[in-house]
Amino acid sequence: MRDVAVIGVGQTKFGRTDRTCIELFAEAAHQAMDDAGVSPKEIEGLWTGNCFGQNYEGIINIAPHLAWEIGAKTAPAFRLEGACTSATYAFILAWNAVASGLYDIVITGGTERALIAGTPYATRTFAMGDELYGSNTGSTFPGVFASASTMYSRKYGIPLEKLREMMAHVSIKNHAHGARNPKAQFYQKYGDLKVEDVINARPVAWPLTLLDCCPFTDGGAAAILCSADIARKYTDEPIYVLGVGAASGGSLFRHEDYTKAVSRVESSRRAFKMAGLSTDDIQVLMAHDCFTIAEILIYEQIGFFEWGKGAEAVAEGETDIGGKIPVNPDGGLMGKGHPVGATGVAQVYSLVRQLRGEEVKGNQVTPVPEIGMTDNLGGTFASLGHIILGRSKRRR
Amino acid sequence: MRDVAVIGVGQTKFGRTDRTCIELFAEAAHQAMDDAGVSPKEIEGLWTGNCFGQNYEGIINIAPHLAWEIGAKTAPAFRLEGACTSATYAFILAWNAVASGLYDIVITGGTERALIAGTPYATRTFAMGDELYGSNTGSTFPGVFASASTMYSRKYGIPLEKLREMMAHVSIKNHAHGARNPKAQFYQKYGDLKVEDVINARPVAWPLTLLDCCPFTDGGAAAILCSADIARKYTDEPIYVLGVGAASGGSLFRHEDYTKAVSRVESSRRAFKMAGLSTDDIQVLMAHDCFTIAEILIYEQIGFFEWGKGAEAVAEGETDIGGKIPVNPDGGLMGKGHPVGATGVAQVYSLVRQLRGEEVKGNQVTPVPEIGMTDNLGGTFASLGHIILGRSKRRR
Repeated sequence: MRDVAVIGVGQTKFGRTDRTCIELFAEAAHQAMDDAGVSPKEIEGLWTGNCFGQNYEGIINIAPHLAWEIGAKTAPAFRLEGACTSATYAFILAWNAVASGLYDIVITGGTERALIAGTPYATRTFAMGDELYGSNTGSTFPGVFASASTMYSRKYGIPLEKLREMMAHVSIKNHAHGARNPKAQFYQKYGDLKVEDVINARPVAWPLTLLDCCPFTDGGAAAILCSADIARKYTDEPIYVLGVGAASGGSLFRHEDYTKAVSRVESSRRAFKMAGLSTDDIQVLMAHDCFTIAEILIYEQIGFFEWGKGAEAVAEGETDIGGKIPVNPDGGLMGKGHPVGATGVAQVYSLVRQLRGEEVKGNQVTPVPEIGMTDNLGGTFASLGHIILGRSKRRR
Repeated sequence: MRDVAVIGVGQTKFGRTDRTCIELFAEAAHQAMDDAGVSPKEIEGLWTGNCFGQNYEGIINIAPHLAWEIGAKTAPAFRLEGACTSATYAFILAWNAVASGLYDIVITGGTERALIAGTPYATRTFAMGDELYGSNTGSTFPGVFASASTMYSRKYGIPLEKLREMMAHVSIKNHAHGARNPKAQFYQKYGDLKVEDVINARPVAWPLTLLDCCPFTDGGAAAILCSADIARKYTDEPIYVLGVGAASGGSLFRHEDYTKAVSRVESSRRAFKMAGLSTDDIQVLMAHDCFTIAEILIYEQIGFFEWGKGAEAVAEGETDIGGKIPVNPDGGLMGKGHPVGATGVAQVYSLVRQLRGEEVKGNQVTPVPEIGMTDNLGGTFASLGHIILGRSKRRR
């Protein structure tokens, strides 16, 4: 397969909106096409993530409408729905089409209005995803990650009070980044949280408080992918796709240990294998911090830190900008917001900006990173996806 | 890209069921794996179509649950939703993964429970697909195809009374085939309809009656794809993917003339181009006969018959078994049933059986066809997909 480059990215401002999913996608897509210097007629295919549109807006088969809305007309258009991994999976399949030579230039992205129906409906819809075994257990996302917190505490002998303080640092860090990001839902908000603010916030699912949880958000994101052979016709700074990985985890009951999701271990391993790289090569990570404990588990499941050492790592600043591995310098899901089916490509948007050195002051990792990674999770470890991007082509 | 073969297929009995989407997929998948002699552990990726599960069963992110249910465990799993084209699009992207060398053996398919919520809810959900421009027009699928009938009548100067008789032959033909197909929803039913039966059936949207319309159905279908290099390790009769095509048509208002959907013309042209073939090479066609008039339009839009000659063709038996181009010898959507998100691969199931000469007596095209095609439509000309399969590899 041939090398593939990201030559343009776009993202709407995240937060509540009255615009439709189609309009949100179109805004992000036109930003990405402008960024790439690509005209709509050059787009040969479209892959989008979208999770809730079918429920909230009653919109079936959104993809071909997006193609026409952005001017790509008869270009084949595919909707991927994999809960929060929707857009990462859209990106991976778009990459496959270009890497294989099927198309030269395509668009991928995601769009979501996750706020319009409110949390109770989203929770019901989302619940455990699987009606055969999961939906009737009464478990919810905050509940599962609350359990993961207590499991983590017991497993590694970290008193829960102490762990809650360590977890709070994920929230403090990501909200600080989000507060500096003009496209974040919480821009200029929650920028200087203290440990006590997080611990004493409104309880959601013990021991998680509201500030341990990411918000649902409306938003769109898009990226233009092309064959690396032609990338420099469009940009002086192509960002190359070095590796992608995906893995399925199935229903929650299949997971013996929430702290060690096999699906994330496998998915990240696959992306590293394709790229011929390891955690040592990654200089910035955009991770699925749906809850504070979730980000800590990511550090360990991908292998940036030893099992049981993730909480300590964040508390000691090792995942802050300037630390061993900066995580979510754009604010992550927690500070930037989480438009479910758009999040995967919104992570790519932020990662590309980091690798180009374009990020806003305070959020840019320095020196400008050469290689970065996105991590995305759908359901309770049901779907995992990873994308590794770099400023230079793959080593052979 | 390398050649890809279909080495196994499966399909559930179509019709009302109490089983879940996951169970329907699993049944079809195990049939396909048994047919191919492939074990679940050999499956490296899964692509499924599913349209309504998210609405009716509240199931988000079904794909990874399917992977675990069938024993493919951590294999990456993708859900495609493109209304009725869902499974065709799943097949096309699964083909792309194998053709590109990303994986050697994958499963694709679709699953749907379209009967559980009933027609009114399906109609609302489905409506025109697009909430930005389409959803509030009051138009429905039967309404759009009823309009296509009157447009066709006026455009080609065929009196409507005469056209209705010609259209009835689509229903008579496909129901006759469906009545012989043990896996059809209408097995042993409607096997000897007369023109008057169709014309005098309950009105749905003038001039369409109930027998001009396909039924919604519950069901699952699956196919195993592998690299052509290894296909003969599994089967003596690999069926090769010769070409695939897809195209977007966007919202209904973008179509000037319902009788000449540009999206189908483009999509089929792309599939023929990839295959290096033309309509003259196709010996059997599985087409999206959602309404009698829809099948007639397909003949013309793909190019099997001249514009305005499709109605005459079916009335004269040219699309029956033994005619110029047999269409829907499995019963089509009308006789076999239409499990929306599974239909695309259910068409592949029937086409593979035709090309292997395995179809039930009366429905098998003779001599056994060398090359056949599937045609699938999502929304009102919003998404089109075509797949060309053959008993021999692509010519170079």
